[in-house]
Amino acid sequence: MALVVQKYGGSSVQDADRIKKVAERVVRARKEGHDVVVVVSAMGDTTDELTDLARQISPAPPARELDMLLTAGERISNALVAMAIHALGAEARSFTGSQAGMLTTAKHGDARIVNVNPGRLRSALDEGSIVLVAGFQGMSEDSKDITTLGRGGSDTTAVALAAALEADVCEIYTDVDGIFSADPRIVPDAQRLESVTYEEMLEMAASGAKVLHLRAVEYARRYNVPLRVRCSYNDKPGTLVAGSIEEIPLENPILTGVAHDRSEGKITVVGVPDTPGMAARIFRTVADAEINIDMVLQNISRESDGRTDITFTLPQKDGTRAVSALETIKEQVGFEELIFDPEVGKVSLVGAGMRNHPGVTATFCEALSAVGINIETMNTSEIRISVICRVDELDDAVRALHRAFDLGGDEQAVVYAGSGR
Amino acid sequence: MALVVQKYGGSSVQDADRIKKVAERVVRARKEGHDVVVVVSAMGDTTDELTDLARQISPAPPARELDMLLTAGERISNALVAMAIHALGAEARSFTGSQAGMLTTAKHGDARIVNVNPGRLRSALDEGSIVLVAGFQGMSEDSKDITTLGRGGSDTTAVALAAALEADVCEIYTDVDGIFSADPRIVPDAQRLESVTYEEMLEMAASGAKVLHLRAVEYARRYNVPLRVRCSYNDKPGTLVAGSIEEIPLENPILTGVAHDRSEGKITVVGVPDTPGMAARIFRTVADAEINIDMVLQNISRESDGRTDITFTLPQKDGTRAVSALETIKEQVGFEELIFDPEVGKVSLVGAGMRNHPGVTATFCEALSAVGINIETMNTSEIRISVICRVDELDDAVRALHRAFDLGGDEQAVVYAGSGR
Repeated sequence: MALVVQKYGGSSVQDADRIKKVAERVVRARKEGHDVVVVVSAMGDTTDELTDLARQISPAPPARELDMLLTAGERISNALVAMAIHALGAEARSFTGSQAGMLTTAKHGDARIVNVNPGRLRSALDEGSIVLVAGFQGMSEDSKDITTLGRGGSDTTAVALAAALEADVCEIYTDVDGIFSADPRIVPDAQRLESVTYEEMLEMAASGAKVLHLRAVEYARRYNVPLRVRCSYNDKPGTLVAGSIEEIPLENPILTGVAHDRSEGKITVVGVPDTPGMAARIFRTVADAEINIDMVLQNISRESDGRTDITFTLPQKDGTRAVSALETIKEQVGFEELIFDPEVGKVSLVGAGMRNHPGVTATFCEALSAVGINIETMNTSEIRISVICRVDELDDAVRALHRAFDLGGDEQAVVYAGSGR
Repeated sequence: MALVVQKYGGSSVQDADRIKKVAERVVRARKEGHDVVVVVSAMGDTTDELTDLARQISPAPPARELDMLLTAGERISNALVAMAIHALGAEARSFTGSQAGMLTTAKHGDARIVNVNPGRLRSALDEGSIVLVAGFQGMSEDSKDITTLGRGGSDTTAVALAAALEADVCEIYTDVDGIFSADPRIVPDAQRLESVTYEEMLEMAASGAKVLHLRAVEYARRYNVPLRVRCSYNDKPGTLVAGSIEEIPLENPILTGVAHDRSEGKITVVGVPDTPGMAARIFRTVADAEINIDMVLQNISRESDGRTDITFTLPQKDGTRAVSALETIKEQVGFEELIFDPEVGKVSLVGAGMRNHPGVTATFCEALSAVGINIETMNTSEIRISVICRVDELDDAVRALHRAFDLGGDEQAVVYAGSGR
């Protein structure tokens, strides 16, 4: 007998029929003799609808009240799933994040999990009940106010519960069959991966793969929670995310897949004086504007004038704000110019042991060059090679790399209608 | 500086515009220097919509989960009102029933308030905040589960908070100008009452007046909470409900008003043997079917055969169930027949000191007889005379009594469109 945590997103519970399907799957797991904990997001567009209602009332609603409002969504969906399970003859009880012992920081709209006290859930499980927990929410340790967890909140809720309850697996249900070697909508012969390590999944998530949130994977890695990404429309085993890169003997590089990201923009701070502290000044300014930075590139300074260019990528939507923020320190830092380029795409090859195999980097560059794609910036880590290219070349880049590294298989990947990632 | 509790029902917060109007009124009270606590029901038809969603999932949803589901409604409306207040520049924080320290029994769907610990609310008020509390809900002391309070739950929440916080007044906002000497839609010259005692209000509520729930009035009386029933569309003072009958010197009877009720049915258990325990058997059977009984009449037994008839009134909708329940004890009790009559109306005259003034009873009967209305049953208390007549004669009965006791005034009562009582 195992303890299984299952997480279902908003589209899986968007109406009464879908909710009943979820209930059937949950009850099947229970009938196999497992303890089952289910994390459910709000139904369909509920969160957006509630946010819209709030905007009708006020353009800048207080964060505490927005959290009180939005958490109603998960409360509703969890109670309904519990009812559906009950209608199938099994015991089920729903709990809010706060009732589930999910303690967080006080930052409304973007709280972090600080601790999980699953005692009440454990008792319910011991009494034979299936347990539902509202995702995306918790309670601030300090103020006792209800908080929402920000992006990736529901996945993270599921992983945090799995860790606290020492679950055997945390299953994340989605609308694709698992993690693929590339986005199946771009690369028709992309392969479903049997399993990937935490580090590879982290890199893929950071590189654009959208199935699992980075944050949830980080949490899983820290507490060694096995994750399984599965499709809610079928019974395929999906992809297991577990284990660490270090455990894999590295005679040959193991290449996992190609990830891509269209959502970024690129800023170059041109002609930064190569003086200590200038880069720090730049990044502190961007951080103070609460903008996340992804890739950073700084090459050596020019011999002619001791200046260098610093390039970084960030979410496109934050580009204009970042530029405004940096304009304010132009004089102090003394850079020459700011260039914001929103038309960039990032493509990444993820796998183990690439640093030890320079042939991989060479093949990478050759593959792109062979299809006429110019590499604008390049950036590598132990298990990832990423480049920036023009966004309209991104699909070609993904296909070229997937082919060059022989990641394709014989089966055509199935793409479900409505897979809107 | 006073502490004011204000309660607003679902129609007062049915959309963004109404919510903003409520916020304006609340902020006005705060600007007068008072501490303000606001209890809000769910928006418009939300509770019905959620119940409907539950029915789509299951015909008999578990009560615990129904409470989890329905309480989302008040959560949403309270957060939105808090946001609207904030948009007007005042501080506001919303709290669920559980966060507000509302402790209840464990009976889902019909919990009773056991205790109120308003510490967190008091702190928020001391910090200068307006406080919003979700009505109709609390937390079970035993199971720590969220509960809903059943009929009259929101009014009762407001009164309970007012009691716990020692408020100076609890204002119940509705769509009429206050408590009237009769329903203004039936009696055009019905008068708004300046004030009524708790006992009179109890009798009026029990007799059919729908503005305040009996339960909330009982709670107010027990803890001496002054209530004020006011209209949310204007600034009229409404009606004060406070004080006790005993405080009023009774030289002459003081007549408050005429109440009516169309929602009842009448059951007569014919030919009950006049043996000890028979009546008890009958009422225990009805009580076990969880049916509320209103008026009970048993006259002396017939000399001819030692049998009597027992008549009682109950909600029409429970009539058939009560009859079925009583059929099962027909043999044991030995009654002759059961008659269920749904076409009854109850009309009541409420006021102080009627028992000491038999002229009142006489005038009462004469007034009805003069308009050809037959009194089918009669039942009196210290401050109320009630009769059952045909439901289609009810309006005439109300007008006749109101006129006979000179309760009308010079002003025409204003009836607001949409006053759906």
